[in-house]
Amino acid sequence: MQEKSSRRVREVGEQGLLKILQGFCPAELVGDDAAAIAAPPEKGGLLVVTTDMLVEGVHFSDRTTSGRDAGWRATAANLSDLAAMGASSEAITVGLGVTGDTAVSWLEELYAGISSCLEEYHTVLAGGDICRASVNAIAITALGWVQPEKKIVRQAAQPGDAIVVSGFHGASRAGLEVLLHPECGRELQSSDREALVKAHQRPKPRLDAIPILWQVMESERTVAGMDSSDGLADAVLQIGRASGVGAILDRQQIPIPGSVTQMVGEEKALEWALYGGEDFELVLCLPLNAAEQLVERLGNGAAIVGRITKRTSVCLVDSTGANPDEVLTLERGFQHF
Amino acid sequence: MQEKSSRRVREVGEQGLLKILQGFCPAELVGDDAAAIAAPPEKGGLLVVTTDMLVEGVHFSDRTTSGRDAGWRATAANLSDLAAMGASSEAITVGLGVTGDTAVSWLEELYAGISSCLEEYHTVLAGGDICRASVNAIAITALGWVQPEKKIVRQAAQPGDAIVVSGFHGASRAGLEVLLHPECGRELQSSDREALVKAHQRPKPRLDAIPILWQVMESERTVAGMDSSDGLADAVLQIGRASGVGAILDRQQIPIPGSVTQMVGEEKALEWALYGGEDFELVLCLPLNAAEQLVERLGNGAAIVGRITKRTSVCLVDSTGANPDEVLTLERGFQHF
Repeated sequence: MQEKSSRRVREVGEQGLLKILQGFCPAELVGDDAAAIAAPPEKGGLLVVTTDMLVEGVHFSDRTTSGRDAGWRATAANLSDLAAMGASSEAITVGLGVTGDTAVSWLEELYAGISSCLEEYHTVLAGGDICRASVNAIAITALGWVQPEKKIVRQAAQPGDAIVVSGFHGASRAGLEVLLHPECGRELQSSDREALVKAHQRPKPRLDAIPILWQVMESERTVAGMDSSDGLADAVLQIGRASGVGAILDRQQIPIPGSVTQMVGEEKALEWALYGGEDFELVLCLPLNAAEQLVERLGNGAAIVGRITKRTSVCLVDSTGANPDEVLTLERGFQHF
Repeated sequence: MQEKSSRRVREVGEQGLLKILQGFCPAELVGDDAAAIAAPPEKGGLLVVTTDMLVEGVHFSDRTTSGRDAGWRATAANLSDLAAMGASSEAITVGLGVTGDTAVSWLEELYAGISSCLEEYHTVLAGGDICRASVNAIAITALGWVQPEKKIVRQAAQPGDAIVVSGFHGASRAGLEVLLHPECGRELQSSDREALVKAHQRPKPRLDAIPILWQVMESERTVAGMDSSDGLADAVLQIGRASGVGAILDRQQIPIPGSVTQMVGEEKALEWALYGGEDFELVLCLPLNAAEQLVERLGNGAAIVGRITKRTSVCLVDSTGANPDEVLTLERGFQHF
């Protein structure tokens, strides 16, 4: 008999694989054509839905990512999109395309990673679909609820708003560098290296920040925001474009872990914070008073990094005067094709 | 300047493609990290969610399927899963993995097909995701609502229930045959050939049958059912297994279009009806009285094809006595790996 861990997908077949993967779903949510989830009792709530498509070799690779980490990351990215809408996280579905040559153990690890992230954020796996494919691909759809007046949107930023980030930036990109080039960051303490790698492999969606946000908001106005999955610069630029406003960011206020600066110097660290992406923090625009309280309550890297302006450009300034002003543009970000 | 229709994905880039495809979404549902959809005002409704993963070369091929047909079919299959749960159809998201070499015009056709199906069934496209991939893949997640007592499940069949199918079977498989082997069905009238091809390319999810079902149901009991996307035999076997019951099906009662029998003879036509799949009709188990009314109201191929039994096997009988009894098994169905 073959070792359990070395079985391939084509050896266990579709039904066999289904049986293995359904073990990760609550029993009451599998077995029918679709899953049914209780809608909230409040009248007139909004259902929030988001989908991500991830492909092996593009979004994950078995060289830098274990199945478990790939599962966590893919799940965290979707839950972060829910947080970015101010929504709760209730359920996800997983569509999986797999090659016959894929190790079943890798898929079990993938689902273990998905499950551990879901467990951390009290979210259920509400089924999905598997099919044969010539490349491994994962499509995750995440579902949550939000009250209409608490929906966070990109287009609601107002001149004078403070721009809050919920935590450190640049750590995920630095962690990737350590994984790709193990000679990088050798000068760091091993706990610092591990923290950077973990920031990349196990990002935390900031669902925790949403209830705190609504505790500190004094007025009923809409909060503008999104997550920093494509980088802090991208987030501020997208919000500015959607709201018809601009921003001034202070490079001295952008929270970057000391270990990143130690590893690659100030300039590179700032570039990673602005353009590295995948930190999955929230970037929120709200009145200064509430912003100050929010930063204090969140702690751990949360900071006011700038303010929204009437002028539509996004300008990076240096409050110490050591660097000239710089205009940020979307073109510096990533184009994926 | 290059012809618009001959552009490839890598030439328009991610942002360019996004802009084209977002044109198919309602404006209020794009532009943020996720889409927000109004939840129903009724208290305690259930959110129903289903995901399908489709891969080029496995589920669709540009030899037999235009982009427009691929889009319709993929959407219809998901909406059929909602109907199979007794749910309404509210929204879908689309995750798309595309090769750089894919013609933009094919993707526009795909989305046009998705949109025309959504329009027919009053459902919105609530965003999604696109990414680069080494093979074209589509992940669709569909969302709808159902009241808890009207949820259709596989496990609720009771001995004595009549088994209703909402329409003809075998037509989709016959249409595929005509597409793959144009020499098949030459003896048919061209309108019959076209009807078979259309049954394959443009299947209709039976969302229309759900309100009628609840008009004819006299008692409050749960209705058992699923769709026949994997064949009529598979549906009855799955329901039987989930409910711990069996069934007797009468081969004389299974509704098969005359053109299919004319094309391939009675035996092959029956095989396609039982195992061909992709007819996307509903297979429902309910009291005889309600079943008779339902069939009359639905018309157009709807029929009572058998009844649920205490004995757990699924047996195909012939009420004319011309054929011996036959026990149906899942193994005859498809294994996709």
